[in-house]
Amino acid sequence: MKKTYLFTPGPTQVPPEVTLAEAKPLIHHRTSEFSNIFAKVTDGLKYIFQTKNGEVFIFASSGTGGMEACVVNTLSQGDKVAVVKGGKFGERWAEICEAYGVEVIPVDIEYGKAVKPDLLDYLLKKERDVKAVFVTQCETSTGVVDDIERIANVVKGHNVLLIVDAITGIGVHPLMMDDWGIDIAVAGSQKGCMLPPGLAFVCVAQSAWDAIEKSILPKYYWDFKKMRKGLGNKTTPFTPAISLITAAGKALDMIKEEGIENVWKRHARLAHATREGIKALGLELFAGEASSNVLTAVKSPEGIDINSAIKRLRDETGVTITGGQEELKGKIFRIGHMGYVNDFDIILAISAVEKCLYENGYKIELGKGVSKVQEVLVSCKK
Amino acid sequence: MKKTYLFTPGPTQVPPEVTLAEAKPLIHHRTSEFSNIFAKVTDGLKYIFQTKNGEVFIFASSGTGGMEACVVNTLSQGDKVAVVKGGKFGERWAEICEAYGVEVIPVDIEYGKAVKPDLLDYLLKKERDVKAVFVTQCETSTGVVDDIERIANVVKGHNVLLIVDAITGIGVHPLMMDDWGIDIAVAGSQKGCMLPPGLAFVCVAQSAWDAIEKSILPKYYWDFKKMRKGLGNKTTPFTPAISLITAAGKALDMIKEEGIENVWKRHARLAHATREGIKALGLELFAGEASSNVLTAVKSPEGIDINSAIKRLRDETGVTITGGQEELKGKIFRIGHMGYVNDFDIILAISAVEKCLYENGYKIELGKGVSKVQEVLVSCKK
Repeated sequence: MKKTYLFTPGPTQVPPEVTLAEAKPLIHHRTSEFSNIFAKVTDGLKYIFQTKNGEVFIFASSGTGGMEACVVNTLSQGDKVAVVKGGKFGERWAEICEAYGVEVIPVDIEYGKAVKPDLLDYLLKKERDVKAVFVTQCETSTGVVDDIERIANVVKGHNVLLIVDAITGIGVHPLMMDDWGIDIAVAGSQKGCMLPPGLAFVCVAQSAWDAIEKSILPKYYWDFKKMRKGLGNKTTPFTPAISLITAAGKALDMIKEEGIENVWKRHARLAHATREGIKALGLELFAGEASSNVLTAVKSPEGIDINSAIKRLRDETGVTITGGQEELKGKIFRIGHMGYVNDFDIILAISAVEKCLYENGYKIELGKGVSKVQEVLVSCKK
Repeated sequence: MKKTYLFTPGPTQVPPEVTLAEAKPLIHHRTSEFSNIFAKVTDGLKYIFQTKNGEVFIFASSGTGGMEACVVNTLSQGDKVAVVKGGKFGERWAEICEAYGVEVIPVDIEYGKAVKPDLLDYLLKKERDVKAVFVTQCETSTGVVDDIERIANVVKGHNVLLIVDAITGIGVHPLMMDDWGIDIAVAGSQKGCMLPPGLAFVCVAQSAWDAIEKSILPKYYWDFKKMRKGLGNKTTPFTPAISLITAAGKALDMIKEEGIENVWKRHARLAHATREGIKALGLELFAGEASSNVLTAVKSPEGIDINSAIKRLRDETGVTITGGQEELKGKIFRIGHMGYVNDFDIILAISAVEKCLYENGYKIELGKGVSKVQEVLVSCKK
């Protein structure tokens, strides 16, 4: 008997109620029955993006597809943009822009650090022809969360679009499309939304349409204008991923029932407990003060082959945590704690980390991390 | 109590075994466990595309995304292509090409007719600078099946890529990538593959790589080179739609167990019975001799508001058939019979069509269609 526990920064655990919704008999997507589900899901997404005026488009695609949609709908060849690059996903924004002949001014941030909004202000004052700023709310590769509210405040002072990768941030950290004045944000299904991967959600504020009208980069599948027309008919222009959208209806109901503010608070509390548990084991947070509530990135202890240790943990216990990617490979490990996660999950995750490190030669007093988590969670009320 | 019966040309009914696979607890996509599933699914897809030398890429997207991938990976701006346009989906090839600045020579075919391969031969002799020919194996909007084998024979005589939309054709009509010399074919999950929508499968023959290397249309998410690199690591470059791919493992097992030749024969037999049932009711096939085994398109009887009748049928009985799209709206109705379909499903579908037409004022002898289907199926052995 082996149970499966996903503590990865996506995909995340899917509640059984959501799985049951996903497994419902398929219905046709050009029916009022589907349109009702679709409209409900769209409303639920507007709630988690905290927008009344914006629209949310649902693509059958991974999050990266949603990112590409943001680029090709707002820009033209030769346009200049600023991209905050503090990890693999910030770099992806730059790669997509460059693939379309958009000139990228990189804002290189040391891995593990947040971007300073003042730096963006300085850059936008100097570079007057920047059309858009691309940022990542939570950089999944490093565990850093950026302060989107302050960034938005800065960007709003210039005549520039703010486009946010909220793929892992959404439903974990607050993201206020309307209040903060974000122009476009993209999210993915397999993170805080508690769904399997396969859907990208793109939230487009009214303020973005001027740029969308002017953009002449080529597009078809990602075309926001087609999506908007579909939205008017409570459907998508191309066959939607019906089972995943049906599942989304259930997942968003659960988020609504808990209340998005409570969802944010829950993540903050659980992430705090995780960080304290990690520190109690004598380990160091990779992102320090900038650590997100989405995942905790931890510096790998010296002398341990962390990737082999993680693999052995998964094979033996069914608990999946992840290592670092690309240049962070072998240097960090990452514990995801977003979505369908509660107190006991954090106890479990930290106990698995303890066991994993202990059995691979890291000298710790067994139970120290778990005790700390227990203590934090009991003392820090919901 | 209402049961759901999908007789639409996609999505199609999903076997309970496949749904159960889809509902399995999620696993992480950068693990050997997922790679094993992924490799098995890729092999299964190569089997249904009938290729040993080609590669199959799995995109999280609808079929249209897979079509766009074919265009952006093989062409450059200003290239000239020929597109067979005999319905909505042929027209989609043209729209995608045009969105990317590719010049389209339209091969306009009357709706309901198949393209004559000789016409393509004539065109390719005249237009020496055509880079690719785009065709649709089964034009879902009209019910027509094109003769891809003969088309491939013609196209091979010229130095031109053949790119086939096999989205609804795959797993229903034979499609022999290697034997016929098709360069690229695209399929979707929600048709003959008996899966929910959300996956596009693109099969790329070795012969296509010369064009892929030369293509400079912009791309990121759809990039075949990235997909090929992923394939080497038994994964995808971006987060795959894990639950749908796990489901695909089961669906492809079922197809393999039946044997693809038997799957083709089953569809031919059931489509034949459907057509005979329809004719016994005094109705006319929209695609006549060119009718596919994927769906049967039927001319709507005079004096019936077919779309209201279809809606009432669905609301009252849970049986979903579909009307015509765009200029065929109100003029035809379509019965899908692909994928998880057996003898009794055809009896059921035709009985529903009988009831639907009868109750909306079309004068028929009740039971005439059903009896004919019964007779055909019993006499025409498997």
